[in-house]
Amino acid sequence: MRAQAPAEEVDAVCAAVEERGFRPVKLPGEDRVAIGVLGSNPISLRDAIISMPGVVDAVPVSKPFKLVGREFHPEPTVVKVGAVEIGDSLFAVMAGPCSVESEGQLMEAAGAVAEAGGHILRGGAFKPRTSPYAFRGLGEDGLKLLASARDRFGLPVVTEVMNIEDVDMVSQYADMLQIGARNMQNYGLLEAAGRTMRPILLKRGLSSTIEEWLLSAEYILGQGNNQVVLCERGIRTFETYTRNTLDLSAAPLVRELSHLPVVVDPSHGTGKWSLVTPMAVAALAADAAGLMVEVHPHPDHALSDGAQSLTPHHFAEMMERLRLIANPLGRRI
Amino acid sequence: MRAQAPAEEVDAVCAAVEERGFRPVKLPGEDRVAIGVLGSNPISLRDAIISMPGVVDAVPVSKPFKLVGREFHPEPTVVKVGAVEIGDSLFAVMAGPCSVESEGQLMEAAGAVAEAGGHILRGGAFKPRTSPYAFRGLGEDGLKLLASARDRFGLPVVTEVMNIEDVDMVSQYADMLQIGARNMQNYGLLEAAGRTMRPILLKRGLSSTIEEWLLSAEYILGQGNNQVVLCERGIRTFETYTRNTLDLSAAPLVRELSHLPVVVDPSHGTGKWSLVTPMAVAALAADAAGLMVEVHPHPDHALSDGAQSLTPHHFAEMMERLRLIANPLGRRI
Amino acid sequence: MRAQAPAEEVDAVCAAVEERGFRPVKLPGEDRVAIGVLGSNPISLRDAIISMPGVVDAVPVSKPFKLVGREFHPEPTVVKVGAVEIGDSLFAVMAGPCSVESEGQLMEAAGAVAEAGGHILRGGAFKPRTSPYAFRGLGEDGLKLLASARDRFGLPVVTEVMNIEDVDMVSQYADMLQIGARNMQNYGLLEAAGRTMRPILLKRGLSSTIEEWLLSAEYILGQGNNQVVLCERGIRTFETYTRNTLDLSAAPLVRELSHLPVVVDPSHGTGKWSLVTPMAVAALAADAAGLMVEVHPHPDHALSDGAQSLTPHHFAEMMERLRLIANPLGRRI
Amino acid sequence: MRAQAPAEEVDAVCAAVEERGFRPVKLPGEDRVAIGVLGSNPISLRDAIISMPGVVDAVPVSKPFKLVGREFHPEPTVVKVGAVEIGDSLFAVMAGPCSVESEGQLMEAAGAVAEAGGHILRGGAFKPRTSPYAFRGLGEDGLKLLASARDRFGLPVVTEVMNIEDVDMVSQYADMLQIGARNMQNYGLLEAAGRTMRPILLKRGLSSTIEEWLLSAEYILGQGNNQVVLCERGIRTFETYTRNTLDLSAAPLVRELSHLPVVVDPSHGTGKWSLVTPMAVAALAADAAGLMVEVHPHPDHALSDGAQSLTPHHFAEMMERLRLIANPLGRRI
Repeated sequence: MRAQAPAEEVDAVCAAVEERGFRPVKLPGEDRVAIGVLGSNPISLRDAIISMPGVVDAVPVSKPFKLVGREFHPEPTVVKVGAVEIGDSLFAVMAGPCSVESEGQLMEAAGAVAEAGGHILRGGAFKPRTSPYAFRGLGEDGLKLLASARDRFGLPVVTEVMNIEDVDMVSQYADMLQIGARNMQNYGLLEAAGRTMRPILLKRGLSSTIEEWLLSAEYILGQGNNQVVLCERGIRTFETYTRNTLDLSAAPLVRELSHLPVVVDPSHGTGKWSLVTPMAVAALAADAAGLMVEVHPHPDHALSDGAQSLTPHHFAEMMERLRLIANPLGRRI
Repeated sequence: MRAQAPAEEVDAVCAAVEERGFRPVKLPGEDRVAIGVLGSNPISLRDAIISMPGVVDAVPVSKPFKLVGREFHPEPTVVKVGAVEIGDSLFAVMAGPCSVESEGQLMEAAGAVAEAGGHILRGGAFKPRTSPYAFRGLGEDGLKLLASARDRFGLPVVTEVMNIEDVDMVSQYADMLQIGARNMQNYGLLEAAGRTMRPILLKRGLSSTIEEWLLSAEYILGQGNNQVVLCERGIRTFETYTRNTLDLSAAPLVRELSHLPVVVDPSHGTGKWSLVTPMAVAALAADAAGLMVEVHPHPDHALSDGAQSLTPHHFAEMMERLRLIANPLGRRI
Repeated sequence: MRAQAPAEEVDAVCAAVEERGFRPVKLPGEDRVAIGVLGSNPISLRDAIISMPGVVDAVPVSKPFKLVGREFHPEPTVVKVGAVEIGDSLFAVMAGPCSVESEGQLMEAAGAVAEAGGHILRGGAFKPRTSPYAFRGLGEDGLKLLASARDRFGLPVVTEVMNIEDVDMVSQYADMLQIGARNMQNYGLLEAAGRTMRPILLKRGLSSTIEEWLLSAEYILGQGNNQVVLCERGIRTFETYTRNTLDLSAAPLVRELSHLPVVVDPSHGTGKWSLVTPMAVAALAADAAGLMVEVHPHPDHALSDGAQSLTPHHFAEMMERLRLIANPLGRRI
Repeated sequence: MRAQAPAEEVDAVCAAVEERGFRPVKLPGEDRVAIGVLGSNPISLRDAIISMPGVVDAVPVSKPFKLVGREFHPEPTVVKVGAVEIGDSLFAVMAGPCSVESEGQLMEAAGAVAEAGGHILRGGAFKPRTSPYAFRGLGEDGLKLLASARDRFGLPVVTEVMNIEDVDMVSQYADMLQIGARNMQNYGLLEAAGRTMRPILLKRGLSSTIEEWLLSAEYILGQGNNQVVLCERGIRTFETYTRNTLDLSAAPLVRELSHLPVVVDPSHGTGKWSLVTPMAVAALAADAAGLMVEVHPHPDHALSDGAQSLTPHHFAEMMERLRLIANPLGRRI
């Protein structure tokens, strides 16, 4: 409440709080009276009281997420994608091309991923693109190629689903469904993907707070599906030398807040292939659950994201460098 | 190209440019060689060449949008919503509650909007909410109430559509379809809404650049529908005293770049009702095409966005203040 | 406190709060215990308790500024610069070139400002420049030219001071001292400038919150000098089509929080001369105290900020447009 | 140039470019004519031409920094602070309390740093504080305590200098001068500190781009002093769960752009002590030159930054974890 707010204004706010089923407690201070509100989910209350006479601000003091929270679910969740366990001692590496472009390109990339010891194959068949004039993916043909690469190289497949009506189709081919950054708050899609009971990879929105990201995961867990892996992929800032700013601290921070595993995508997170390996090794050092990186046999001919894709050769070098420190840190790869 | 890049690297980049159908021009400088690329849509090229040996950066020098651009369509587009024309001398005021909550609430709000001279009724039946535990709207029942308020008060209706499968249903009731900020890059939805040939209100994403916003509009125009109104509603910044930072300069700037009209939403843009009227008057002063504001008969009982909603009384005061300057500025209201 | 925090942890935090002279109040909730802290300046406390066992977060609920606050000083402060009163009904226009470049340039600009009805002459003699290779101002020679323009055209002068050791010299020539955005948190400079008892124009830092900005003003008022005008000049965001994002809502918001007047700088705020007039008129509409704009007789030959400078002709047009709405809004110009 | 710009407009821009001593080259495209500008420092030109008729944009294609650039100085610079070499195989750890508060506190902290194997002692005697009511440091008494701790524990000392007039005094006591984030663009201070020929630790500004940061270092190198260490300490973003967002990718990126070493400050970068160790290990993994961390014997009694300070125990654990991976990565500690 503002200083000098008369007692009637204070009482009116207390009454409004009670009317909504919460318990108000007056906290008289030197300059002003504050009102504490008790109850397990008083978010909706904030909007109601903030504009009442005498009110200066309404400040939440507890976290709004429940199912994803570490507080009420202390043990870590392990997510299984095929035979790969994410969230345990394995540092799980998901790699592959940004877009599936052709059979030759995908098989070459998948072969390189398998040979260097990657665990999961990634590749986009449906591509969200800022410009309608950019390449938007091969669609179901791309999914078929992914499934065929899985059979050939023994790697489970993660791929993005963009629209609710594609959820069933993508589920037929993929071992894990990816929700892209632009769709992090597409709540209908979150719930539809959640209902498949497939493991879900939920990318952080370009400018989503960690709280919003966890609340989006809450939509999926609300469908009874707790097989969710979070993916930090860089946030939008004022810096222009990198495509995004990789918020690597999100990995250890979310580990405190939530039981869900977090993987890191240094390809989108930096936008420059030369920064991918340093940030990948940093992700392992920060104890992330794993990695998602873009690998393309010929980055300079890629139809999307060439600038941030590793060649097979650089990918193998990255895996070598990860192996140098995995053991000392108590992880395996 | 970097300084000292050997001639072979320069030639390789030129060859890569030509191979993709564009024309390269070498620009030898004191420190380095630059390569100019000519052609009408070289975006896809950037990814391809940026990682080639010797390349320092690839800088676009022309804008990537076409159909929405002022350059190739100099005259302004006027969008018709019922009998209301947006993009002409009228300063169009869209107003109403954030969410449709009940018949009483909606009729009271709509009556207040009509009486004070508002032109279009807004109200949400489908509400995207950060938390799954918040009120998510009345759905089709809300749409029916909106249609009934339209009949009673003679105001055309704008309301949000969140999922592709709801597009047809919402189109049956609404005069204008709103694409919300969280869905600005939900491309399937943009195209589905565009195909209805209804006028579309496209809100700017929370952290979308103006270029991305115009490219999203390009998806709609690509369906043959040019009846698009852009809505600036505040962007995410580091400032926490306001809910968002209203980027009012977007209104005159987009008027230079595009032929589409821009309206301003000071309710979401600021998050505080006391700032709505000053920023609404500022929007008119900056020559925006109109306004979208939240009006609620009892903001302190609102199920969403109460803190930023005007009462009917304050809405009428805002309209009065707008009238003070509309005429002198050559506008009507 | 976190859920399940044992009573000893709660008591330990309460004891820590008391030890520092504040009064703790336990607020038992359903999920957790919260602890309210009463006292007029508990900022320093936050650091102390946030890392104690069981503590989840420490959330401030009252504003940290005192002298600049509206709460304890309800009436607005009027700042006098020569005979010009800022903070009253006058919409005060400060205008002139970014940098003083030569006598001819300055006199031409000052003459144009005076003729079109501007109230205060601005011009930089000391220029902070991102690159050491850019033009850094004429120094004391520039100050002499400003003083001479004041004598000739009867306009009081505002100019930037960058270093403590220049404060006395600049005070000899200038009617108002400007603290630039880069120096907003140069506390030694704030106090030295404050002690001159000259009116101070305090620009908002490029990425300062409103709270930090007001706390910087608090440093000046702490020297016994309340003649402070705040200047919103745009903040740094992800948007690149404008140089900065002009946070116009800061004007009405600071008017609620503080008794100090706020002027708006649409030249730096947008970086494009074509956006200056729309945003200047918007600033008046949002009830700002005044304006700071860049005027240059030949913007395309300017040594700094040419892209955002108005010509004398465009400046006169802006003044005309401001006059259209000043009267209806109860202001004069 | 805009599409359809007449030949006279194109020629006028070319003439303006030549007049300023640069060489223009016309690049006719399908839609428009572009004009390339050759020359080693065309920055000042941008302002001049951007507002000329027909000009759409002026885009820089080469980097504006020279002395700090890797391009013209390929070998890495090693900075010597006492006997400690930063920029070579050593992972240099600077540690100590945020503020020097008392002899007991400092000696306890310094002893802990020395014992666990830290290399340089940090501690603030002059503290820039957002609020004038917060603790602002012990001044020269703090410097004397730092010098005494150096003698006792054999650790060279780095401490911040805030004002030009303090540069000489601080230089008498400190082995390395720190320029704080708030002063990154206080150019007078940069030059005064540079002229001492002491090694300088230049923190990145809260919302400075990497380009601006390197240009600030250019001010120091311009004084003939190349003993500069850059310190990434987190940037301001929309995220509120961390105090800042640590831009760890800045370390490998600056290593590409510049020959100067980069250290990382995970204490300010995250604001939470529990994130300091993961991000410190990540900094080593990303091949940063070293670390700056806050250590306090009793963080919950610290006068500043307690929430982000490590205890001596946690600091020793961090050093252990760093040692696990230093060797495998070819570094020593």
